[in-house]
Amino acid sequence: MMSKDFNDESAALAATVMEYMTAFMRGDVPAVLATYAEDGVLMAPIGPAVEGKKQLAEVYPGLFAAVDFNLVPKVKEVLQTSADWGFVRTATEGTQTNKANGDTVRTRYLELFLLRKSATGAWLIARYSTTQNGPEA
Amino acid sequence: MMSKDFNDESAALAATVMEYMTAFMRGDVPAVLATYAEDGVLMAPIGPAVEGKKQLAEVYPGLFAAVDFNLVPKVKEVLQTSADWGFVRTATEGTQTNKANGDTVRTRYLELFLLRKSATGAWLIARYSTTQNGPEA
Repeated sequence: MMSKDFNDESAALAATVMEYMTAFMRGDVPAVLATYAEDGVLMAPIGPAVEGKKQLAEVYPGLFAAVDFNLVPKVKEVLQTSADWGFVRTATEGTQTNKANGDTVRTRYLELFLLRKSATGAWLIARYSTTQNGPEA
Repeated sequence: MMSKDFNDESAALAATVMEYMTAFMRGDVPAVLATYAEDGVLMAPIGPAVEGKKQLAEVYPGLFAAVDFNLVPKVKEVLQTSADWGFVRTATEGTQTNKANGDTVRTRYLELFLLRKSATGAWLIARYSTTQNGPEA
């Protein structure tokens, strides 16, 4: 086991992820974007990788216009791997509603967030992958 | 920009991911498992997170028995973030065939691999998330 040569900031990593999650559930685009680094990348079931804050700013409004998410995230793991990198795993469960037709389905997601410490000391989402299990049969 | 205080082993990170991918496409369970760390975790559309080599050894045979994958991965990004951690992003496209009924669909995946350097110097998959786009309409 190696000794750590950096301060443990794992609580700050988890806090950024929970900020993202709560902003996501209320469909708050500016608050969602504030949790991403400028070069942040989203990998999700909705399509190709969304690369950089400009693309992210184009994708989230359409997502929130189409779907109402009502999911509860649980933090499964937080690990800071260096002075300025770390990751968080979450599992998320609940319902989502298609706003066009009102259809609601139960669904689950698994999330893997890579976070990087910014020059100002904030932990921001650098790479984020979410994979969907369900809708349940 | 910080100077790196570690040797760049990004080629080795990418090599492990390509070993995983080629083993996965030929349905080779032992070769797939050899690319994972003991505590490796898989997050995929197939169900809950698969945590640790014992669970992984139970899940992959069933997956390969059910589905024939014929996908081509492209490496999108490789970044070593410390002496013993790094990540690789890939995008994967092709077809998969349900072995029970022969149905073949075109599909795409996005993969995010977190790799950790083992005590023996091998880069192994520590956390891996794959998200599916498609089947295409």
